[in-house]
Formats: sequence, C-alpha cells, structure tokens
Amino acid sequence: MYYVGVDIGGTGIKAGIVNAEGKVLLRSSIPTDRSFDPYVISDDIAAQIKDLFTKAGIKTEEVAGIGVGVPGAINSTTGVVDYNNNLHWSRFPLSKELSARTGLRVKISNDANVAALGEAKFGAGKDYHDSVMVTLGTGVGGGVIIDNKLFEGNEGKGTELGHMVIRVGGEQCSCGRKGCLEAYASATALIRDTRRAMEKNKDSAMWKYSPKLEDVNGLTAFECSKKGDKAAQKVVDDYIESLGEGLVNFINIFRPQAIMLGGGVCGQGDYLLKPLTKFVKDNTYGGDVIPPTEITIATLANNAGLIGAASLVMED
Amino acid sequence: MYYVGVDIGGTGIKAGIVNAEGKVLLRSSIPTDRSFDPYVISDDIAAQIKDLFTKAGIKTEEVAGIGVGVPGAINSTTGVVDYNNNLHWSRFPLSKELSARTGLRVKISNDANVAALGEAKFGAGKDYHDSVMVTLGTGVGGGVIIDNKLFEGNEGKGTELGHMVIRVGGEQCSCGRKGCLEAYASATALIRDTRRAMEKNKDSAMWKYSPKLEDVNGLTAFECSKKGDKAAQKVVDDYIESLGEGLVNFINIFRPQAIMLGGGVCGQGDYLLKPLTKFVKDNTYGGDVIPPTEITIATLANNAGLIGAASLVMED
Repeated sequence: MYYVGVDIGGTGIKAGIVNAEGKVLLRSSIPTDRSFDPYVISDDIAAQIKDLFTKAGIKTEEVAGIGVGVPGAINSTTGVVDYNNNLHWSRFPLSKELSARTGLRVKISNDANVAALGEAKFGAGKDYHDSVMVTLGTGVGGGVIIDNKLFEGNEGKGTELGHMVIRVGGEQCSCGRKGCLEAYASATALIRDTRRAMEKNKDSAMWKYSPKLEDVNGLTAFECSKKGDKAAQKVVDDYIESLGEGLVNFINIFRPQAIMLGGGVCGQGDYLLKPLTKFVKDNTYGGDVIPPTEITIATLANNAGLIGAASLVMED
Repeated sequence: MYYVGVDIGGTGIKAGIVNAEGKVLLRSSIPTDRSFDPYVISDDIAAQIKDLFTKAGIKTEEVAGIGVGVPGAINSTTGVVDYNNNLHWSRFPLSKELSARTGLRVKISNDANVAALGEAKFGAGKDYHDSVMVTLGTGVGGGVIIDNKLFEGNEGKGTELGHMVIRVGGEQCSCGRKGCLEAYASATALIRDTRRAMEKNKDSAMWKYSPKLEDVNGLTAFECSKKGDKAAQKVVDDYIESLGEGLVNFINIFRPQAIMLGGGVCGQGDYLLKPLTKFVKDNTYGGDVIPPTEITIATLANNAGLIGAASLVMED
C-alpha cells in the first residue's frame, strides 16, 4: 500500500508517494498559485498527485489515502482549514475538495504538527516519547508529541508555537500581534534583520555576499559571521537569543526529552546548534535537577512534512 | 475516609482535612519557618497535621493519606522536591520525611499543578475537559488539564507557566531569567510597579491609599484606579497587558476551553476580568474560527491548593 503526503506552503506545494516504512518513493514540487484561490490550488494539487501516480506507475486502488499539512488553524476532525493568515483562507473544506478531485480519502492537519508527527514516527524523534518540533521557515510552526502521541490542543487548534509573544510590543507578526517568536526566529525575520544590519553597516562583508538587499537570504548573516564579520555576528547572536528564549519557554512548559529543529536555517548545523544548546542549558528553569532536553536537528529535513502528512492516513 | 491536603508557600503553610466530595472540614495555617530548613518545616507540618487530627477528633486510621503542593520542580513519582528557588530547597525527599513523621503515605506535586487539579475536579474547571489554571501570587504558577487529566510535563517537571519570557531582557525574575510572566503578573510585580508609579507621581491618590511605600499592596493600584487616578490606571493597564499577553500565549499553545485565574489579585473580579477578556479575545491567534476560551476566576479561592493536594491521594 502507498500513502500520499502533501505539504502546502506559502510559496510552494510538495507532494510525495510514501511507503509504510516512511520512505518517500517519488516526489514533486509546484509553486503555490499567487492568487491563493483555494479551488485553484486544490486543482493544482490534484493534478500534481495524478502526475505522480502516472510517473510511478501506481493505480489509485493501491493508495490508502492522502494526508495534507496546511499552515494555520485546521480542524483535523472536519477536514476544514478554518483560518490561515499566509494563504488568506477561511473555512475552506480542503478534505472534501481534494477528495472530490482525486477519489481518495483525505486527512488534514496543521503543517507544523504534521512535520512533528513525521519526525516523531520516522525521524529525529523516534527514540523519544516526549518531544517538541519547531520549524523555522517562512513562519515558525510547532508540533508537540506527548507520550508518543501528537498533541494538537483542544479541537486540534493548539500548538501555534510561533505565535507566542517573547517581546511584548516588538516586531509586527503576520498574525496581528507584535513580538511573536515567529517575528524573530523565522527565516523571514532573519532576512529582515540581516537587511537592517547591512543598511546600518555599509562596510559589512555581507554586502559582498549579497550585493543588493534583495539578494539577502537566510545564509547571508550566518556565512559572513563565520568569516568574522561583526555586523553579521550580531545578527546571528540576536537570532540565537530570540530562538533560545522561545525554546526555553517551550521547555519550561513541556519539559520534552528533545526539541527537533526543522527548516532551512538548520542547514547551519553545529554553528547554530552549539550556541543555542548553551543558551538553553544556561536559561532553563530548574538547572541541573530537571531532565535534560536535547536540541537536535530534524533528520527528515524537507521530507518531514511529506512523511508526516502521509502518516496521517497510516494510522487507521 | 478523610484526606489531608497541605499547601506549602514561601510565607505560610496551609493544611486541611478534606472529605471525598472535596469539602474542607477543618483547616489551619502556620508561618513558613524563615530558616527555610526543610527538616524544620517537615517537623512543623507534621505537628500541624497532628493538631488538626486532635481538634477534629480523627484517628490516623481514618485518613487515606497526605497530599502536598510545593512550589518548584517536583518529582511527583519519587516524592522529591528537586529544586525550589523560593524556599532554597534542593533534592529534598519530602514524601519520605513527612511519611516518617506521620505514619501516613504522602504524595507531592507542584503547588500550581495541585491547585489546577483542585479547581478542575471540584471548582471552576469541573465542566471543562481542557483548562489552564494560572495562579497570581507571590509568584505566578500554572497547571494544565488535558482531556480531564493533570498534565505535568515529562517527569512531572513541566507547566512552569510563570517562567515563560514575554519581554526578553525585561524585569529580573526569581528564576534567573529576565522578562518572565512572573516578573510582570505576580502580586510581587504588581506591588513593585505600583511603588515605581508612586515614586514618579507624587500627586497620585495612591499616596493617600498607601501613605508609605512599604504600605503598598496588591490593592493599591486597583482601588485608586477605580477612583480615577491616572497613574494607578496606568499600573493596572500595564498589568492587564502583561497578564493578557501571557494568557494569549497559553491559549495559542493549549487552546483550552477555560483559563481559571487564582490568587489574591483575582479579588478584583470583573474589574480585572472584563478588560482582560477583551484583550485576550482581540489578540488570540485565529480570531473567530477557533474555539473560544472563557476566562474565569477560580471558585475554590484559597482552598484550591488544599483541595487539590488532598485530591492527590484520592485517585488510587
């Protein structure tokens, strides 16, 4: 039996055919239609999946179902995307629409929850019963595993970990509040802060790495910091402080055995992980007497969402 | 059968005899020994309980056990107080010591968790399956009920809700970090901010309510705000903003059906609740499409800790 995983993002949509061992057999990626029209996007996804079936030589009868990870407030019971502030969707019955277009049963959940489920079942979390995953992408999402189960909050509407204010009155967040973790620890925030630092420091090496402000990406500050650029180092230090404060907050609440970090910024590996681990250790409530939390990088990388989404239709 | 509940605080220790319906039959209160010596305090508690038995005419054989709520990082499985930054206890085997002094079995848990359990079983939370309790006292503690069960975090070390940073680099917290919710929403913080406002506003009516800075208490700002004093109003507004930001963070994580507020500040009733509820409604992620969270005031008041502690020995 095969399982389809779909990972809907603000800029692209990934889909893949996954087997029972959590291995992605074939995958594809399409851009998210800029109209954000949910019916157009449903058409696109259905075509994307049919294309995968054709290329893999798989018949619909061999597929157990489609699992979808979507950003925002999702009702995983009714299959409705209740609210999404990146795609501007409101109360869209995604399960129903995708099912009508594919003839397959569809289960949906929050994208970050789904990535956490994937990592917990088949990735970095498979040895832990309590873990938290934090995804550092366009936004910041989170997923929580308690006693080996995905914790989604009441009505599946919880664990919006990116929308925890860490600086009251701080940077504007896409959710309407100011000072959310997402507004400091997302790749979007990192790029914003890199650009600001460049504007303030005209002699920074960052201008060589990214000659125009529009060239700046999530690597600019990190790569220049490695080469000793002070302005870049400050951007990285501030980023790690904000992310670290957020992680310590999660640890003080859930006390997980592990925090798994996902998203592009994690490509930095130990250069991110070492100072972050030290910050977390120094600031966690309870010091040495509380159970340690390992900060790890998600091993499924960009596949976590796909594999986790496919996991949604593996359970029953 | 009777159950003993004990609530250990930084300034006083409450103990009570509770019946199976969660009613406190007899209670007493003693000051917490200022040496904070855990053995002296254990002696004090044992004497306090024996005194209650004598006054109530109850024999040890009629008592199922003693449940104790203690601030800090508690291992509820081993009965050890691993860490407490108010009492300065570290790895103290409270269950064992109290049991040796009373001949009764003893179960311990974090004081705020215990209060949440009491409210959830017998108080404001009894109609909800998902709730969060936040206690606004000397510190800020929290307890979380998920699917009718007390969620304590891995190894019983979680839900340190007061130690969630809401203003990175902000006010010094007793835990070592800066900017924790506790450093803004505790009664201690309210008093600190009231004093600061008085020092800045020598013509404030707060000087009439509390002629000396050492007279200031948790009522000063609230009562003078009700009478139109602007400096007092600002203290109250800021307090509600900080508390509100913290509650919204919890809602975005747990999406509880209700948040129950406990502690002295809640004596303000609607004067606190109305603006707080509006703030929370305006700022919660997901707006109208997510399940509502009712903000309520704990009904067991100062008994929540006692009743919840006694509940620890009711279950099994």
